[in-house]
Amino acid sequence: MNIAVFGTGMVGQIISEKLLELGHQITIGTRNVQDAINRSEPGRLARPGFGTWHQAHPAIKIDTYARAAASASIIILATSGDGVLPALKQVEPQNLSGKILLDITNPLDLSQGMPPSLFVSNTDSLGEQIQRTYPESKVVKSLNTMAAFVMINPSLIPGDHNVFTSGNDPNAKSTIKDLLTSFGWQNHNIIDLGDITTARGTEQLIPLWVRLWGTLKTPIFNFNIVLGKTE
Amino acid sequence: MNIAVFGTGMVGQIISEKLLELGHQITIGTRNVQDAINRSEPGRLARPGFGTWHQAHPAIKIDTYARAAASASIIILATSGDGVLPALKQVEPQNLSGKILLDITNPLDLSQGMPPSLFVSNTDSLGEQIQRTYPESKVVKSLNTMAAFVMINPSLIPGDHNVFTSGNDPNAKSTIKDLLTSFGWQNHNIIDLGDITTARGTEQLIPLWVRLWGTLKTPIFNFNIVLGKTE
Repeated sequence: MNIAVFGTGMVGQIISEKLLELGHQITIGTRNVQDAINRSEPGRLARPGFGTWHQAHPAIKIDTYARAAASASIIILATSGDGVLPALKQVEPQNLSGKILLDITNPLDLSQGMPPSLFVSNTDSLGEQIQRTYPESKVVKSLNTMAAFVMINPSLIPGDHNVFTSGNDPNAKSTIKDLLTSFGWQNHNIIDLGDITTARGTEQLIPLWVRLWGTLKTPIFNFNIVLGKTE
Repeated sequence: MNIAVFGTGMVGQIISEKLLELGHQITIGTRNVQDAINRSEPGRLARPGFGTWHQAHPAIKIDTYARAAASASIIILATSGDGVLPALKQVEPQNLSGKILLDITNPLDLSQGMPPSLFVSNTDSLGEQIQRTYPESKVVKSLNTMAAFVMINPSLIPGDHNVFTSGNDPNAKSTIKDLLTSFGWQNHNIIDLGDITTARGTEQLIPLWVRLWGTLKTPIFNFNIVLGKTE
């Protein structure tokens, strides 16, 4: 598939590499292409700067948000949470209409430092805000409850553990489920929570995720929902 | 131990039965003793009304919040979330000072129906509100991330799954850890998240818990945190 990945950070890089490996055509979308390519300073967790990383992955295209979205059938939202709506605003509305927007972001508010709070929560969610702003698009929230390395390689963590999906369009969720399967997620570990309002639940899991990261001293963990014995 | 359990509902009943079985002296605290005893209509999930239940469990005492707290060394808060602070207000401050308040409630706002939202969240939590209101007490938040039947019988769910603790006082958390162990929780499945501000994380897990209940069609499940392989 022709996939746009919005965001040049660690999450965008890791998911783009995996999608390329799986045979997809990838265009990373960014605000200013030249600025991104010029970025050579290492980023979070000693990841290379985007320009350095991009030189090592020449098969991954980079373009403006607008042009990356125009040619894509799926747009993966992997910017910072507060960058999602501004990025989508750069795209001509007809280039979003009817398309799947896979939202893997979280509405982190880091303005008060760590631990972050959420800039939308409880009675609304970022997933819902995106769906309301683009009613002709099919928003699917998924993968936002774990570190990027786990998203694209669930076998990093032994045994069963879960990924959630939220969204109003069953066909779009089915397409995303296939994508998750191609990343290595087993069918029985993909839990569809329901419509996009259920994104409130997964986004509000992040405050616990952040505290567990502190307690466990590693981001390589995930949640497994364990059911009681049936009589 | 002499334990007060605040709340005559399903959670209060289930935890009181277990504590009695473990040999503790239990006094259930309520606003109006006679009202509670007169309640014979079945409650949630076809539980007997409090009066009917109490007749079947005569060894469990019932008294006002004030008197139940006065004689107890630990007070378990098992009312509705919005009932916690009003209940504690009925107690003479010196009868709360220095005592452990085990808060197993969630700040559910059911005023808009299901699914509930939270009446405090994100930048504050009910656990913190209680600790701020009673700085001389030792608030420990725990057990609030699961159904009551699982709280007191973790073996209902096979294998590993977790219970969290949040609180500022290490000795109080140690006492609660012993209580959890007596319920059947294994040491390695009890995760101490840190101070009482970490209660924001576990309280914000409830919106996801409620959606999972809907998806899984049973409340008998729990979260297991699975760690990545170490190299």
